[in-house]
Amino acid sequence: MTTQTATAPETTGAAPIVPSYVRDAWWTPADDVAGTEVRDANTGEVLARVSTDGLDLPGAVEHARTVGQRELAQLTLHERALKLKELAQFLNGRRDELYAISYRTGATKIDSMVDIDGGIGVLFTFSSKGRRELPNSNVILDGPAETLSRDGSFLGTHVYTPIPGVAVQINAFNFPVWGMLEKLAPAFIAGVPTIVKPATPTGHLTEACVRLMVESGILPAGSLQLVSGSARELLDSLDYRDMVSFTGSAETADRLKSHANVVSGGVRFTSETDSLNAAILGPDAEPGSPEFEAFVKAVVTEMTVKAGQKCTAIRRTIVPKGREQAVVEAISARLAQRVVVGDPRAEGVTMGALASLDQLRDVRGAVESMLDAGGELAYGTLDAPVVRTADGTESTVDGGAFMSPLLLTWDDVEAEAVHTREAFGPVSSVLGYTDLDDAVRLAARGSGSLVATVCTNDPEAARRLTLGIAGHHGRVHILNRETAKSSTGHGSPVPHLVHGGPGRAGGGEELGGIRAVKHHMQRTAVQGSPNLLTAVTGVWHTGADRRLAGAEEFGGSAENTHPFRKSLAELRIGDGFVSGLRTVGPEDILEFAEKTGDTFYAHTDAQAAEANPFFPGQVAHGYLLVSWAAGLFVEPAPGPVLANYGLENLRFITPVAAGDAVRVTLTAKRITPRVTDEYGEVAWDAVLHNQDDEIVATYDVLTLVEKEDTTYKNWA
Amino acid sequence: MTTQTATAPETTGAAPIVPSYVRDAWWTPADDVAGTEVRDANTGEVLARVSTDGLDLPGAVEHARTVGQRELAQLTLHERALKLKELAQFLNGRRDELYAISYRTGATKIDSMVDIDGGIGVLFTFSSKGRRELPNSNVILDGPAETLSRDGSFLGTHVYTPIPGVAVQINAFNFPVWGMLEKLAPAFIAGVPTIVKPATPTGHLTEACVRLMVESGILPAGSLQLVSGSARELLDSLDYRDMVSFTGSAETADRLKSHANVVSGGVRFTSETDSLNAAILGPDAEPGSPEFEAFVKAVVTEMTVKAGQKCTAIRRTIVPKGREQAVVEAISARLAQRVVVGDPRAEGVTMGALASLDQLRDVRGAVESMLDAGGELAYGTLDAPVVRTADGTESTVDGGAFMSPLLLTWDDVEAEAVHTREAFGPVSSVLGYTDLDDAVRLAARGSGSLVATVCTNDPEAARRLTLGIAGHHGRVHILNRETAKSSTGHGSPVPHLVHGGPGRAGGGEELGGIRAVKHHMQRTAVQGSPNLLTAVTGVWHTGADRRLAGAEEFGGSAENTHPFRKSLAELRIGDGFVSGLRTVGPEDILEFAEKTGDTFYAHTDAQAAEANPFFPGQVAHGYLLVSWAAGLFVEPAPGPVLANYGLENLRFITPVAAGDAVRVTLTAKRITPRVTDEYGEVAWDAVLHNQDDEIVATYDVLTLVEKEDTTYKNWA
Repeated sequence: MTTQTATAPETTGAAPIVPSYVRDAWWTPADDVAGTEVRDANTGEVLARVSTDGLDLPGAVEHARTVGQRELAQLTLHERALKLKELAQFLNGRRDELYAISYRTGATKIDSMVDIDGGIGVLFTFSSKGRRELPNSNVILDGPAETLSRDGSFLGTHVYTPIPGVAVQINAFNFPVWGMLEKLAPAFIAGVPTIVKPATPTGHLTEACVRLMVESGILPAGSLQLVSGSARELLDSLDYRDMVSFTGSAETADRLKSHANVVSGGVRFTSETDSLNAAILGPDAEPGSPEFEAFVKAVVTEMTVKAGQKCTAIRRTIVPKGREQAVVEAISARLAQRVVVGDPRAEGVTMGALASLDQLRDVRGAVESMLDAGGELAYGTLDAPVVRTADGTESTVDGGAFMSPLLLTWDDVEAEAVHTREAFGPVSSVLGYTDLDDAVRLAARGSGSLVATVCTNDPEAARRLTLGIAGHHGRVHILNRETAKSSTGHGSPVPHLVHGGPGRAGGGEELGGIRAVKHHMQRTAVQGSPNLLTAVTGVWHTGADRRLAGAEEFGGSAENTHPFRKSLAELRIGDGFVSGLRTVGPEDILEFAEKTGDTFYAHTDAQAAEANPFFPGQVAHGYLLVSWAAGLFVEPAPGPVLANYGLENLRFITPVAAGDAVRVTLTAKRITPRVTDEYGEVAWDAVLHNQDDEIVATYDVLTLVEKEDTTYKNWA
Repeated sequence: MTTQTATAPETTGAAPIVPSYVRDAWWTPADDVAGTEVRDANTGEVLARVSTDGLDLPGAVEHARTVGQRELAQLTLHERALKLKELAQFLNGRRDELYAISYRTGATKIDSMVDIDGGIGVLFTFSSKGRRELPNSNVILDGPAETLSRDGSFLGTHVYTPIPGVAVQINAFNFPVWGMLEKLAPAFIAGVPTIVKPATPTGHLTEACVRLMVESGILPAGSLQLVSGSARELLDSLDYRDMVSFTGSAETADRLKSHANVVSGGVRFTSETDSLNAAILGPDAEPGSPEFEAFVKAVVTEMTVKAGQKCTAIRRTIVPKGREQAVVEAISARLAQRVVVGDPRAEGVTMGALASLDQLRDVRGAVESMLDAGGELAYGTLDAPVVRTADGTESTVDGGAFMSPLLLTWDDVEAEAVHTREAFGPVSSVLGYTDLDDAVRLAARGSGSLVATVCTNDPEAARRLTLGIAGHHGRVHILNRETAKSSTGHGSPVPHLVHGGPGRAGGGEELGGIRAVKHHMQRTAVQGSPNLLTAVTGVWHTGADRRLAGAEEFGGSAENTHPFRKSLAELRIGDGFVSGLRTVGPEDILEFAEKTGDTFYAHTDAQAAEANPFFPGQVAHGYLLVSWAAGLFVEPAPGPVLANYGLENLRFITPVAAGDAVRVTLTAKRITPRVTDEYGEVAWDAVLHNQDDEIVATYDVLTLVEKEDTTYKNWA
């Protein structure tokens, strides 16, 4: 992506056009295009127009599939992850420019931080996870290899490679920055280029963020494109190589899912739609308890943050029958105390406007239909509220999309409307349940939700409620006195955990760390010989050829250097070492027991050991064996291997008794050079055999090895 | 599922009806229902009729969601897995009954074994994997817990729980037994009841298998239902709780995917449709090479097994330009030598009939359109072949769905028809490629396939071809001289590896061991305090309460028994032991180095150790520390802990120098009683601290512990 100067939005009489960014250049439609107006959510003032009249969408898709795929493929998974960190640092320094625009979308400072800082935080988390949890190559292995023939000559394994197309994001208006970055991060690490299509009312903030990202010069050509305005025909250009991640209304999701290219063309489609999320108050959470307090706070927060325009907001509070009134009173009191509605630029305002007058109309309509269906207003009014304007005065405002928070109660908790009708604003309902099964049933009546809060300090209630509703939810947030202060909140997806939910919530899954990276990749089973699987994956597979130093009687050759003497510049997968046999004497076992204190009877008492179903009699400690193995494979003098930082998957297979002997074979299995350090990780396949060539133990030894033999190069 | 006697198929003039099995009882329609005829593929004789006229499909769905879900939930993952083994053993003893029916579908003995023995094999594999790789509970954890607050009081983790509905399988005619069992096995282990809808031409074999399964009495009520005949309205009863796994034509898949309950209702839909699978011959594989031979054998096998009626069959052989003629000649020669078409009951027949005359008509039509589009017949004829009949004579047969294997060549390898038109029979095409990129491009022109073979002995060609096509394929089978004998074959999905593919192949994923179990479960992120996450998951989370025996100064209490003295009957998650500090002297390190032979400089040479970027100076061996830890936590006398069989995730965090001290805390983290043994696995969370309470190392200790304190109960 070149850092070319943007075409400054023009203001020829009409409002300026929000440009698109396609094929690594800014694009605006012809001057005389009408476009769709974008307004300030607080004042109704026209801010800009959007239009894609004349934009070459098929060209954008083709650019991503060719230039974008090629440029991203030239970087490894770690290199791409590192770029996200650089990008996050760059955006972190330019947040104020984004806040200034964000206010105009009705967002308070806190709302803006959720969106902007939250989005940047996702980049940091994915960058860090990408480098910690993924190999530094272009292929991710999934699970262990499977042996498919008796002789071990035919294996199977699974690899993830990038899908060979473009990731199209179609986003909602409520998180114009986070919505883009949380989808971009995993696609980018996976090596898949992105086309962003933001929602019109707040797309100008997305555009401002893309402008900064382009300016940074960090992203490779073709890896990010922006379509400002309608992208109705975008799906016409997509096929099975591509994916669409949609966030927004269920109605739009259904329309997109019905597109021929999704139904028959194989476009991968995932959606996250708002849902009727519940918060369940446990039977133990009496008024006055820490859980009751935490519950009320959580409900008020979810009602008012982003003026309730969050897919994850709590729409249904499900509380023990008989405790409804206490809950309503506590929520009402807190709303009255804490919530100041108004222009987010005014001092003291805690809840801004809805994103647009259209939104306001929709929310009012939804509430009216809920009242018709039996809901009763327990707090708030549908009338235009008195609000605090930008200059600090209190008045009602024409053109501003303001509304009062509303709390509803229901005599009939089975009323269809409360479980199906969503008012996408500061609106919630209180319902009573009879017992835990009833609470689970009521929560599930949302027909699939993004998240539910379970508020209880009773472990058994937590277990029953959580497992009862888990199959209907993408996330369950358990709230109690231990987490009241530290919880990241019901409504906040975190990058480490999956976000999405079944049914009404869209059936998709985003975030969840590396899980989201894999959603942008194809999982493929690969079958073949150990040698060819090693060649394909870059990871040594048991049975593949190797170059062993060490004991000639076990396949070592004097021609091969001990692999611990090789830096990453020289070390290759399959380089290894095999030791000679060392015999374990009875005194070795007893002495080890004495020195370590591990006097477990199997090592010290022949008679007791023989009664043990797994041992032939007195046996050597497993820890003795791995310690000896280290002694057998070690190369004592200083060299490029700096440390053994761990060990994985140790399994003791055949016991070793006094008189038996052991030897070790060590093979370089996986090499992961770090992009930011002068060393990397090497995992060594370790196998212990006894004198009869039976396998005694298998494990992986984890070491840090220098890229070049630097520290000890001239060590005497 | 009760073992009630089946309604014997009646033969009142019309052919007998193939019954359905719903709500734990056999069902047949009214006598006067016409139904659809099912014919013997070899002779055209009418065998049976199917009809679902009057069948209560919504009732079947409701039965699965209520009775089936409830009965399955009463078993653990291991108990369900064990039932599959019992079922496999039962069916194994009754295979002959199924073979007898299978012949009438046109299947040879080998074809029948692929279907019947293959299906039973899937049950065995899933049973074994389920018990080896899953916890013995009802919740599967996904990945490690994530710390979401600085103080560690708020964590997140992921759990898999069964989807709360029914798994509907809609199967193809080609594998009436395997097709059912490969989908049933993972659903059953997951705890999700199944409704099977087989294809009409071979559904009578599925019905015979279900009859045996019902007779076995092994399956819980509601866990399996069978719909023999049309199930067009089944989707009307499904919602977001349910899933549909379809195998069959792309056209039917598209129709099902367009159903409102899939588009808007959230039904989970996965499909596996036949695809234009490729086999690529590497540039190195000259005629006469082992790879060339293996390639020719593979193509002939895939053309003729099941008369080419396999979703995975090789439809396009992609060979180096100039080598097409050699390939055609070799394939033709082998077809002429090896293939005897005829009634599978006749001696020597190696290829049976297609499944029906309708199929024969479709295949002929497809081939004709390919010939019109530029394909040329290089082997075989479209005329009715002379075949071997059941009595061993050779003749053409009216009513039998026989055809000759056909090999096509193409002057224009870009012809759309060869990459899009599938003849679902013994038909393949030979295409020439110019270089590896061209081979990748041609393979990808299948627009998403189930499987491709890459046949080469050149590691770099294997790497480029495999990674080049991986994004377009569900499986890549690499064939070379090392695997020519041991390969399970291009066309055979194995239960260990995923089966499915993007785009044209349906976009689904089945099998792949535990991956398939998880496809029947909802992944849910769960956030909460360590205590409540422990309560919900049954696995101890760092920070949760525990009951420690051992050193009082570090939280141990004399009131608590050492956990190694507890059998599984007494041991609880969170039971633990904390040791006192043991100081590491310089002589300990040197002595350990001498005894083990691990004289790495960091342990023996202070000056060299100090130059190392990770060590403060001379440090203790990691193996010394874990060996000492075992000495610190051990309970030496015989008791219910029988063995330490391994260790996981060992990480050395803070180095320990001479003069430092270490202590260990061990906590019961995960308990997995075995269903078939008198013991189970216990994983212990182990943490080493130093004298300053810094974490020195973390790992999991894996032990085998008796269910009851039996072996050493009265040990003196």
